[in-house]
Amino acid sequence: MTTDTVTQTTVEYLNSPFLKAIAQQIRANDSYGTYRNWSDELLLKPFIVTKAQKREISVDGDIDPITKGRILAFYRAIAHQIEEQTGALSQVVIDLSHEGFGWALIFSGRLLLVSRTLRDAQRFGFDSIEKLAIEGEKLTESGVALAHRFSDVRKL
Amino acid sequence: MTTDTVTQTTVEYLNSPFLKAIAQQIRANDSYGTYRNWSDELLLKPFIVTKAQKREISVDGDIDPITKGRILAFYRAIAHQIEEQTGALSQVVIDLSHEGFGWALIFSGRLLLVSRTLRDAQRFGFDSIEKLAIEGEKLTESGVALAHRFSDVRKL
Repeated sequence: MTTDTVTQTTVEYLNSPFLKAIAQQIRANDSYGTYRNWSDELLLKPFIVTKAQKREISVDGDIDPITKGRILAFYRAIAHQIEEQTGALSQVVIDLSHEGFGWALIFSGRLLLVSRTLRDAQRFGFDSIEKLAIEGEKLTESGVALAHRFSDVRKL
Repeated sequence: MTTDTVTQTTVEYLNSPFLKAIAQQIRANDSYGTYRNWSDELLLKPFIVTKAQKREISVDGDIDPITKGRILAFYRAIAHQIEEQTGALSQVVIDLSHEGFGWALIFSGRLLLVSRTLRDAQRFGFDSIEKLAIEGEKLTESGVALAHRFSDVRKL
């Protein structure tokens, strides 16, 4: 793959509704206007963590607030997408122990639309912008399917 | 009500399966054997916080780990009781912000058996041992009912 093709693919993915939703989440929490003039691509860059970079991140200490914020933005973007597609108002809960283990949950009424265990959350990130988009869209789709299938539970 | 009647009622309640389940949770986390020789009544005493005592607890600071442990024990006892009655293996997640707001969730598969918002969690506690037992049993019952009603969702 040439560099041009890679850039082309990245640009295409940057138009994905899911990546736009993450960028929107980050901007929504940007109380001080730090990111006002940043492109989506720049905002999403910290979500890309290669395998080699991951190995360099210690999982001994607490998870830093910036990484936790990134995890929240990822799951809030999924919640937002599910809501857009189903009308299901949902809550996001990220429960992390001090060792980077825990849960990421998105629920609506009594239905868990997304339920994932987290481990080594200090290393949260994706191989590429494409992987980020694909993973987010996959979780969105399965949440949407559940919301439709068990609409009585999510309306409780 | 005479003191004797009160004691009588407390003793009756101490035999409630729910209060026994809380005491069991506390003992299960007692790695250093601190509570080995404590009666259930003594173990449960910190769960009783009168209205006057609550007013004296500041809600400005972070929730202290001991109070958080008490909240966990309460919800884990409910999860344990639901499991005993339905066979539904469940997870407890307590998500608290630094301001004492958050969620207490018990879930099994994709079903939320218990879903409560927490506020002023620094003041977590009950008027009396009876109220503690009643509240725990009420949440257990409604969780059991949901587990039966939506067994397909909790088996996902």
